[in-house]
Amino acid sequence: MTKAAVFADHLAEALDRSGSPICAGLDPVAERLPAEVREGRSPVDAIEVFCCGVIEAIAGAVGVVKPQSACFERYGPEGVGVLWRVIQRAREAGLVVVLDAKRGDIGLTAGHYAAGIAASGAHAVTANAYLGAGTLSPYLDAGLGVFALVRTSNPEGDAIQGARLEGGGTVAELVARELAEFGRAHTGARGLSAVGAVVGATKAADAAALRVAMPDQVFLVPGFGAQGGRADDLHAMVRPSAKAAYEKGVLVTASRSVIYPEASGNDWKSAVNDAAIAMRSEVNAALGI
Amino acid sequence: MTKAAVFADHLAEALDRSGSPICAGLDPVAERLPAEVREGRSPVDAIEVFCCGVIEAIAGAVGVVKPQSACFERYGPEGVGVLWRVIQRAREAGLVVVLDAKRGDIGLTAGHYAAGIAASGAHAVTANAYLGAGTLSPYLDAGLGVFALVRTSNPEGDAIQGARLEGGGTVAELVARELAEFGRAHTGARGLSAVGAVVGATKAADAAALRVAMPDQVFLVPGFGAQGGRADDLHAMVRPSAKAAYEKGVLVTASRSVIYPEASGNDWKSAVNDAAIAMRSEVNAALGI
Repeated sequence: MTKAAVFADHLAEALDRSGSPICAGLDPVAERLPAEVREGRSPVDAIEVFCCGVIEAIAGAVGVVKPQSACFERYGPEGVGVLWRVIQRAREAGLVVVLDAKRGDIGLTAGHYAAGIAASGAHAVTANAYLGAGTLSPYLDAGLGVFALVRTSNPEGDAIQGARLEGGGTVAELVARELAEFGRAHTGARGLSAVGAVVGATKAADAAALRVAMPDQVFLVPGFGAQGGRADDLHAMVRPSAKAAYEKGVLVTASRSVIYPEASGNDWKSAVNDAAIAMRSEVNAALGI
Repeated sequence: MTKAAVFADHLAEALDRSGSPICAGLDPVAERLPAEVREGRSPVDAIEVFCCGVIEAIAGAVGVVKPQSACFERYGPEGVGVLWRVIQRAREAGLVVVLDAKRGDIGLTAGHYAAGIAASGAHAVTANAYLGAGTLSPYLDAGLGVFALVRTSNPEGDAIQGARLEGGGTVAELVARELAEFGRAHTGARGLSAVGAVVGATKAADAAALRVAMPDQVFLVPGFGAQGGRADDLHAMVRPSAKAAYEKGVLVTASRSVIYPEASGNDWKSAVNDAAIAMRSEVNAALGI
């Protein structure tokens, strides 16, 4: 088993323990934080306090968090410092951390990114495979799981990802096949690969073909909730005949609908906790867990 | 003219002034630095001293530098602090700064990346358009130029970038057409777009078709020197009937061969200066400048 395959089993165990294949996205934006968090704090300090509060609020309902690197990087060195501390806090709360950084570069350079991401404490990273599936090796060699972009939920993604190839299929399906082949060497004891795929929740129509191409990949499915993805859309993404939460091969992610819930009359952390529990119920019901 | 189109003219002026369309890549790796720079310093401090020395050494020969974000990010918050200071130093030396970060995310998130990159002082950024050319808008809206990956020099890039589409052409050519169309609105007074393309120096065979698809794009051409790209390979990349350095529409980049020159008996900064001048002569001779 490779160093990265250990991540695949670690993720499976976390989903088993939490009982739901869901993930909370940490996309903190200063203007959207609760007034009491913002008051008397710089934007970047407020983001740190907020993220630590969210982690505390969701840790009982969710097994995985996905901090959005860009939301921290926008504040430069100070923001990256906050990101690293937030990742540590999430680890201390027993959560699996997928850093949403969508890195993509050739071998030598990917190795530098991998070193930094591993040092941050993250367990996995999102990545871009346009430069070839083989360029993802340095992340796996550093023991990180990878979720590579295959089919994204934004409308502008269609022109390239949806383009049809000579001989049939789309560009996204080609990327899917490349990832599946590349990821085979990094399969853990529970049959899942440490090389996963990002497949947008609004792209359910494409999901069946992608699942055929990637039988052992975990689909990280962003866009649930605020971006319009619905629980029913998940069926085509699930691995056939899967029963346990981890076997489904999906990691359904919501960010804004969980971390910025509509005012509920409660304090903000209780509202975040309620939103995480509601998402969990909705996803589990749809998946028959 | 858009805010970003100003970058296209700024770049053209810088290349005119320097008299050569070349760019030095700053890819600092602690183990490769001169012994006198490493001695008594932490790796990240040594990188700062080294990069500032390289900037001083090349500023007379080169108009553009391209710091590789990964080399700094691997040191976390401290490394990003060094990156930001190095970018400032390059600006003070009158250089155009292209941050090689290959970012790629959907709109809202790209906006956060753009805010951080603009705050760093960089003039432009490398990006990934797999999520659609439209996702590059936030960088341009922040006044940054963009060089999007089209055809990379690494062998693993062929499987996806070189795949043939129904109706003809490759995936890279489709990305090229998307970028050209998207970039038209961001064309400066000198006829170049602020939306450029990364085309590897070793992919000369594909360059002619890419130049047809992208008549007004500046091709950022990495891989010159250490990665095997040769001056003769540049001909197919140049805009037809271009005369002045900026009109060529190429920005030829070398990293390792300039910043880690073979021992020359001189002190290391003189050796870097010599390597930059040698590269400049070789590229200008090949391009008839």
